[in-house]
Amino acid sequence: MSTLLETGRTHTCGDLRLSDEGREVILFGWVNFRRDHGGRIFIDLRDREGLTQVVFGPDVDAAAHEAGGALRSEDCIGVAGKVVSRVKNQGQANPNLATGEIEVEVTRLEVFSKAQTPPFDVSKDDRLDTNENLRLQYRYLDLRRPSLQRNFILRSKVGTLTRTHMAGQGFLELETPYMVKYTPGGARNFLVPSRLNPGTFYALAESPQIFKQLFMVSGFDKYFQITRCFRDEDLRNDRQPEFTQIDVELSFATPERVFEPIEALMRKLWGELLDTQLAESFPRMTWAEAMDRYGSDKPDTRFGLEFTDLTEKTRGCGFAVFEKAEYVKGICLPGEHGKGYGRGKIDKLTAFAKKRESGGAKGLAWSRVEADGTWKGGSAKFIAPELQKQISADMGADEGSLLLFIADDFHTTHAVLNSIRLHLRDALGLVDPKAKQWNFLWVTDFPLFEKNGEGNWTSSHHPFTCPKDEHVELLLSDPGKVLAKAYDLVLNGNEVGGGSIRIHRSDVQAKVFEALGLGEEEREQKFGFLLDAFKYGPPPHGGIALGLDRLAMLMSGAESLRDVIAFPKTQKGQDLMTHCPTPADDAQLAELFIRHRPLPGSEDGAEPGNEG
Amino acid sequence: MSTLLETGRTHTCGDLRLSDEGREVILFGWVNFRRDHGGRIFIDLRDREGLTQVVFGPDVDAAAHEAGGALRSEDCIGVAGKVVSRVKNQGQANPNLATGEIEVEVTRLEVFSKAQTPPFDVSKDDRLDTNENLRLQYRYLDLRRPSLQRNFILRSKVGTLTRTHMAGQGFLELETPYMVKYTPGGARNFLVPSRLNPGTFYALAESPQIFKQLFMVSGFDKYFQITRCFRDEDLRNDRQPEFTQIDVELSFATPERVFEPIEALMRKLWGELLDTQLAESFPRMTWAEAMDRYGSDKPDTRFGLEFTDLTEKTRGCGFAVFEKAEYVKGICLPGEHGKGYGRGKIDKLTAFAKKRESGGAKGLAWSRVEADGTWKGGSAKFIAPELQKQISADMGADEGSLLLFIADDFHTTHAVLNSIRLHLRDALGLVDPKAKQWNFLWVTDFPLFEKNGEGNWTSSHHPFTCPKDEHVELLLSDPGKVLAKAYDLVLNGNEVGGGSIRIHRSDVQAKVFEALGLGEEEREQKFGFLLDAFKYGPPPHGGIALGLDRLAMLMSGAESLRDVIAFPKTQKGQDLMTHCPTPADDAQLAELFIRHRPLPGSEDGAEPGNEG
Repeated sequence: MSTLLETGRTHTCGDLRLSDEGREVILFGWVNFRRDHGGRIFIDLRDREGLTQVVFGPDVDAAAHEAGGALRSEDCIGVAGKVVSRVKNQGQANPNLATGEIEVEVTRLEVFSKAQTPPFDVSKDDRLDTNENLRLQYRYLDLRRPSLQRNFILRSKVGTLTRTHMAGQGFLELETPYMVKYTPGGARNFLVPSRLNPGTFYALAESPQIFKQLFMVSGFDKYFQITRCFRDEDLRNDRQPEFTQIDVELSFATPERVFEPIEALMRKLWGELLDTQLAESFPRMTWAEAMDRYGSDKPDTRFGLEFTDLTEKTRGCGFAVFEKAEYVKGICLPGEHGKGYGRGKIDKLTAFAKKRESGGAKGLAWSRVEADGTWKGGSAKFIAPELQKQISADMGADEGSLLLFIADDFHTTHAVLNSIRLHLRDALGLVDPKAKQWNFLWVTDFPLFEKNGEGNWTSSHHPFTCPKDEHVELLLSDPGKVLAKAYDLVLNGNEVGGGSIRIHRSDVQAKVFEALGLGEEEREQKFGFLLDAFKYGPPPHGGIALGLDRLAMLMSGAESLRDVIAFPKTQKGQDLMTHCPTPADDAQLAELFIRHRPLPGSEDGAEPGNEG
Repeated sequence: MSTLLETGRTHTCGDLRLSDEGREVILFGWVNFRRDHGGRIFIDLRDREGLTQVVFGPDVDAAAHEAGGALRSEDCIGVAGKVVSRVKNQGQANPNLATGEIEVEVTRLEVFSKAQTPPFDVSKDDRLDTNENLRLQYRYLDLRRPSLQRNFILRSKVGTLTRTHMAGQGFLELETPYMVKYTPGGARNFLVPSRLNPGTFYALAESPQIFKQLFMVSGFDKYFQITRCFRDEDLRNDRQPEFTQIDVELSFATPERVFEPIEALMRKLWGELLDTQLAESFPRMTWAEAMDRYGSDKPDTRFGLEFTDLTEKTRGCGFAVFEKAEYVKGICLPGEHGKGYGRGKIDKLTAFAKKRESGGAKGLAWSRVEADGTWKGGSAKFIAPELQKQISADMGADEGSLLLFIADDFHTTHAVLNSIRLHLRDALGLVDPKAKQWNFLWVTDFPLFEKNGEGNWTSSHHPFTCPKDEHVELLLSDPGKVLAKAYDLVLNGNEVGGGSIRIHRSDVQAKVFEALGLGEEEREQKFGFLLDAFKYGPPPHGGIALGLDRLAMLMSGAESLRDVIAFPKTQKGQDLMTHCPTPADDAQLAELFIRHRPLPGSEDGAEPGNEG
């Protein structure tokens, strides 16, 4: 008699239906849940595809029944038996299970491996009751939970569909190196010492940016790659040292020629994987408009609370806070919500607005609107009633509306009001998660430069981003006014992608470098080979990169990137399962021509111990 | 008038046919070749899809004609014009071009960018005339050559087809981390110092082996991934520090259940991309048989020259060289080839056989076969005529056959005869490249262990490889006899993949560790988390990894992996285009808690200079 493993399964645990009644089947899977009842043993057998109830009974097969008595949760087993109806026999169908109308009466059991008692109950899919560090330590068990299995099955399909779609549109998936030239001064790179080239280092690629531009120089025309990127950043809550992006570049590009295949891709993904029909074309909004209306370059357009600009209207209003500020902008919380916002809540909102993370407002001005449009409370006493009425009308206020104002410089005004707007969204439930709104938005025309901490101009994206044609002449005379052919794709307030048309003209590139204060030598050292390449007939080109992790997270409804990355690292960059990173022995370091430096806190300059 | 770039191209340079005659079209591309004739300028315009002849004439458009006069090779341009017939107008069709029956008379020219004179002629596709270092330095131009474009287009299709095929077979593409735990003592890993965890290091993953096994523990059932692997090896001719593999693992696996989807994948790739029908099932051969017949675990079965084992037959033959040797084996070069092999060639072959790279024979015995089966020359005088006849018959010799013998230990005998066999293949042209033979072969039942330099047993593959069931009992008593459920996929003498069924039973794993002399502490340190995972009901599982670079090379007929890797590194691990790796500044190293060691040859222990 051959083993069940040799014979192979006939079905998965998600396959069997009432129409299979009477069939002899073989199933493989894990003991999800066991229940003994009336002398019989009932087990929910689980695999990637679902659950099937299998039954061991003395009346069915005495030997199998006895062996079944030893089964425990998470044992891995194979069973052979007959499909019987739960509808006819017992009227005990389980409507919650796709296979709920049948069960399998087991005549043979093969135990592939036993399981110790798991540190948490895999069959319970409510993850919130488990300490996240424990989940990460036993990640292989955590990944057995059906909700995580669903996330990764979805993510896998996103990858496959993206690839077939892009290939179908004439894009070639081409690979770029991960071990690349280290260029000081950019994003923080991970370094890799070279054994064969003593004293030198590779960087782990932070993105394929330069290589994909070289592919365009090479005439590959349309490129994409689903690729890993590496950044040695201080990890905030939702960052990972390695992450995955859908990287795209095309020759003879215009922004619209970049948008079109990406919109088509999103329609494909949402249509096939979420059964959702997206619009043929996504709305476009300039960066200037996004900032003006929402104070954010990634506005969540699923709800209102748009800003009203009161700067002009409040010039000379007599209220010093408004008069002196560069910008005065406000949000109107309509009466239905505003009426519930008493003094206590307003004080809390003021405290929130002053927080550094919220943008650090000096204060939050407010007032409440009466039936005639005049105000009561807060800033009412500083503003003439006639102006109150005008502002109420401008802001679309109704009776009981709560008006909230920030008066400050450009950055603070917009950052704080944006924080308040998003805070109110969550506090008041202005977006219903059940409604499954998917608000895509292209934000365009970003500023080409921004000022860094020392007041110098730096590239908002990277120095190859192309300025708008009509702004080329401003590059040196008024860099702050120069807008770029750069764009972001925003979904429900999340940036899911960004890109630009690149500079392919050396005269324009030279001006940009000059505006950035980049001297000849520095250009040559950092970008020499790319500038060389651009001497040989580069095509006009542009592209975009989408964050696959974030897309998968949003599509699956997961709350953290860690729920769509199989083996994520903690905020300290550690893998709690494998205990990594680890010390290396000195012999290995010697081969790489490096040695340890004294560690922080080691007074005597001792070198770290090692495991080896 | 909008620019041609804004309007967009109407066709690629490979699209237009005689049926398009009279159409107004816009094409974008590069000046491949220019020829002036009869007052007109003829240019072959090149893009990824092909070449189209475009014509500038004073009679067509005077302004365009004048502008066209300034065009040089590799300029990137757009043209608008009318499709005219080359068949009717001039009887000058070019049968070598898909678009050769038409040309485009240019009425508008837009020069996107000018090109300097390239360091080599891109339009000439014969790469051998160009120094490889120059090609690598100007890789972006090298990649413009049609032959390389074809390679990468093919490679891209291999990736897409593999993914759709595997996904269609129920395999999920799942991503594994590249920055992983460093485990001393395995393959040489690249190390990445951790900034957030002072004094510790990540390794760059040499393969996803352990993570894919954990996916099986997690119940993902069928996994694949096209993924990068990193190995810090001394680079031989055809190795790269990073390479790409098609990685596969499945639960409830048997070798046949691994072979089946891989065979189906190869049939798909060859069928769709090379228009070649492969067999439904590939031949299987045990490792023992492969060694016996071909002296290689990756035999090229496209031609004969199989080995004959003469060990038994030559015991007591009186010829000391044969009698004393552990093994005596021979190859018979048939008369049609053997007759041309005079003494000079045989001496050269003997010298070849003695080379270290050939296996280091002490000598090469030979003789020539007469019409009656007796021998003449070489070893003839040492062997009795009756035995000569028997051996000639055993080896299938005809008149003029050249018999070649190696008598040595197992390793040397087989290694040298294999080298000779492959040498004769190339020297005599025994395989016709035009015949496009594709001999796939599964080699199975590899030895589980092999002896290392110090005479200790080590794993031939990795310590999780499952022994054959009937050999489990030999693990401790006779490890050298234990065969593994391990297999390689061989194509025309190239190993294109390898894998195994893994151990999922802890009692078997414990015995393997014992045979390897791996103590409790070392097991725990190296594989602790995997052994922990295996306590929670691991399924029986197994898999395989295929070398995508090598597959793409063989499919495209390229002669080097560097012709199917877009930005390869040299044997010193350098990228000649970007000049990488490079020194890093000390401030960066300080952040990583490492510093330089004195470099080899620096007497005073000076630290290397840096660019920063």
